[in-house]
Amino acid sequence: MTFSARLAAAVRLTGTPLCVGIDPWVDRLPGRAALGATPARADLADLARRFGLAVVDACAGQVSSVKPQFAFFEALGPAGMAALADVCGAARAADLLVIGDAKRGDIGSTATAYAAATLAADAPFPCDALTVSPFLGPDTLEPFLTVAEANGRGLFVLLRTSNPGSARWQAPVADDLATWIDSTNAARGDLGPVGAVVGATHRAAMDKLRAAMPHTWLLVPGFGAQGGSAADAKAALRPDGLGALIVSARAATFPDAPSAAYDADPAAWIRDRVAATREALAAG
Amino acid sequence: MTFSARLAAAVRLTGTPLCVGIDPWVDRLPGRAALGATPARADLADLARRFGLAVVDACAGQVSSVKPQFAFFEALGPAGMAALADVCGAARAADLLVIGDAKRGDIGSTATAYAAATLAADAPFPCDALTVSPFLGPDTLEPFLTVAEANGRGLFVLLRTSNPGSARWQAPVADDLATWIDSTNAARGDLGPVGAVVGATHRAAMDKLRAAMPHTWLLVPGFGAQGGSAADAKAALRPDGLGALIVSARAATFPDAPSAAYDADPAAWIRDRVAATREALAAG
Repeated sequence: MTFSARLAAAVRLTGTPLCVGIDPWVDRLPGRAALGATPARADLADLARRFGLAVVDACAGQVSSVKPQFAFFEALGPAGMAALADVCGAARAADLLVIGDAKRGDIGSTATAYAAATLAADAPFPCDALTVSPFLGPDTLEPFLTVAEANGRGLFVLLRTSNPGSARWQAPVADDLATWIDSTNAARGDLGPVGAVVGATHRAAMDKLRAAMPHTWLLVPGFGAQGGSAADAKAALRPDGLGALIVSARAATFPDAPSAAYDADPAAWIRDRVAATREALAAG
Repeated sequence: MTFSARLAAAVRLTGTPLCVGIDPWVDRLPGRAALGATPARADLADLARRFGLAVVDACAGQVSSVKPQFAFFEALGPAGMAALADVCGAARAADLLVIGDAKRGDIGSTATAYAAATLAADAPFPCDALTVSPFLGPDTLEPFLTVAEANGRGLFVLLRTSNPGSARWQAPVADDLATWIDSTNAARGDLGPVGAVVGATHRAAMDKLRAAMPHTWLLVPGFGAQGGSAADAKAALRPDGLGALIVSARAATFPDAPSAAYDADPAAWIRDRVAATREALAAG
């Protein structure tokens, strides 16, 4: 079964385009205070693992997918990467699709090595899809796509990211890149394996790209904390309610201020917050 | 002491612009045959560590720097990342500058997390410089630069990569990006902390960028195996002999065919090959 078909089924089953980000924000992890001022990196990695597993527990059955952010695990060293592997595996075991947010990109056999790390059947960091950078060129996306399709996995190519400065080196190539992505998908049928990352913070670009890319899943950061409204984010959906995953990360998984209830049972706290985020997105 | 000053001193001391890539190519690692058809990933990670340490041993005192390719370690899972951490640490202990080839890029606090992983004083994967992708925009390079400069480290921004398809989404922004990079360096003096990756495989682009970026170190892949000649690669040097690191990776570290001498003493074999590559580069 293709990634796109699996994702469509999971979105229909859960009834929401929400995708919950897993960003183990080291200063705010549940249990962080107990480690004192100079915690060992291995202890922080263990907190990151527990946090990730709590997000997975909170999300199972409520949303289609989770999006672990590789950077925060990598900052915790090899022990952090072991935590990432565990969180990815637990999410897949809980029938959540894993969107690995790694923004990888490299040439030839190096791209294949990144794909082997994440998209192969026996990948050590098992993901259902991976965010990738197109900057090196179409010949560098092809090795990722080959491994992805062979294993029923997908990609999300950076197209218009949510940060304020994204236009400068993305806008000059956006039309050509959007055409490359959507035509790659069109050649395979309806919604295809090559998604695109488009921030909810750039509404005009979103409207244009949604119209130009009818065969493409959009992964939409920037909803909530970064300033994109629910309406801005939902502009990424096709009329059939498919075609977009709308991400909430820190707003759905961390309290605004230290919270004893959160520290006592993070999974329960996050489960309630994810439910509220689903509702806010549906109502907005 | 700045990264640029440390690099200039190391290039002058060793008398060569050569930088040796550390690409643990899993099928060809010394000792691979002894592991049989279905090796455990942890055993492959151990071979990758030994290979990386052999390259470090072979390079110490001969070249200024080594360039570990993160992808090949990541493909071996958390154990592979532990091997990467050991290889980076051993290279720095041997007075080799470590150019971490990770091509990372992300927004805000996520970029800072990648920088913490590699460029901070206590980074788990300690590098003297990191390759980064500019595609997300200048505001996403700034967190990397802040961490790098605070710790005497540097960056190499992808500008014109060595693969055949690199022009498509790089050429439209190359002039603006080159100006951003070189002016960032010029504001700091002579050669600055923000290098650029320019392949030896695109000679006309190299000549133009070298002339346009007098304050910028170039990191030059594509010499040898990918088809760039010594003369093409050396076009990246400034008249003073500084301003470029010319990379040789697999050609300097793997035999063309299985070799008993290589398997018996990889460090000795690589030491000879690195010396020959230095000579070929000097003569070409």
